[in-house]
Amino acid sequence: MKGKFVTFEGCEGSGKSTQIRLLSERLKTEGVPHMVTREPGGSDIAEQIRAVILNGKNSAMCDECEALLYAAARAQHLREKVQPALRAGMLVLCDRYVDSSLAYQGYARGLGADFIADINGFAMRDFTPDVTLFLDISPEAAFRRKHGADEDDRMEQLGLDFHRKVYQGYLKLAASYPERIVKVECGGSKFRTAEGIYSLLKRRGII
Amino acid sequence: MKGKFVTFEGCEGSGKSTQIRLLSERLKTEGVPHMVTREPGGSDIAEQIRAVILNGKNSAMCDECEALLYAAARAQHLREKVQPALRAGMLVLCDRYVDSSLAYQGYARGLGADFIADINGFAMRDFTPDVTLFLDISPEAAFRRKHGADEDDRMEQLGLDFHRKVYQGYLKLAASYPERIVKVECGGSKFRTAEGIYSLLKRRGII
Repeated sequence: MKGKFVTFEGCEGSGKSTQIRLLSERLKTEGVPHMVTREPGGSDIAEQIRAVILNGKNSAMCDECEALLYAAARAQHLREKVQPALRAGMLVLCDRYVDSSLAYQGYARGLGADFIADINGFAMRDFTPDVTLFLDISPEAAFRRKHGADEDDRMEQLGLDFHRKVYQGYLKLAASYPERIVKVECGGSKFRTAEGIYSLLKRRGII
Repeated sequence: MKGKFVTFEGCEGSGKSTQIRLLSERLKTEGVPHMVTREPGGSDIAEQIRAVILNGKNSAMCDECEALLYAAARAQHLREKVQPALRAGMLVLCDRYVDSSLAYQGYARGLGADFIADINGFAMRDFTPDVTLFLDISPEAAFRRKHGADEDDRMEQLGLDFHRKVYQGYLKLAASYPERIVKVECGGSKFRTAEGIYSLLKRRGII
């Protein structure tokens, strides 16, 4: 593959979308050919699968079905959109990828990271990102940023407990793949975080 | 599980649907509580996934995506429909199950039976049928029965080659799981085949 594949990971409220937007704007001014995409979805067939996953009427969906649908959408998005762009020499910025499945379904939902790694290994055929940026912010701060929530509220508390497990999952992944996954501090100004991401990608020869 | 789970497998044209119908009619007259279902599909969410798989506009779907969608539909159908019926003590007759994925995707499409077994192991969590009836008819005869085809036609010939691979896949599966998979001769009269299936299920204590 001629291009580079960069994925953005983190809890909800960690600012992934904002950082991808800021990076894309800067790359545009510099004339760097790149593509922004997201998971689940990102291609026509993968968006059809996303619609089944996110359909509010599908509350009876079991965890195994959901995990397999995420992997199916990933397999399609990868072959139909990501890999062709990489072959054309583009830089691909992707909002969530396999680490989201590992952190959310594998660790936080308790399906087992090995199981999730197996089905995604089949989906990806060992195709991994050149670098993965884990936007590292405490789950409490990310949760407040996203929901502006009062932590005493029981429902919000349940949500926060789940996000703590997701965060712990990401920390385990970062420890397991230290070459690929880079922790990015993002508790402060979004512009300072953006500068840090830009410098890091420069240092790694990605841009 | 109190009930028994019987799956029907075979190439297109092997007569699975006809045999399930004949068996179901006989069980009805005998007052045996049973449920007839099919894959892919068989529950609301699984049917939504089936619609994505079979959508004629989705010709860009990659083999890995398709295999994961079949497994996702299976996971959901199993938990939402098959297992509750078994817990209620019903006999469940299912038109196609995991062996279809192994024969079609694993062997005939060349995705690898081990890969397909892995993702379906995740979908099923080792939940296997009590008995699987493999309707054993030569792929040539099944193909003629289904298509009434002239074998000299090139497109039909391609189809026949594929079905030969599927058939070889089923033979390998039957050899690998001799306790579970029973070959049923079905080249002759459908009523004689139906009688054979009924006797076999009686002998095995299924009905």
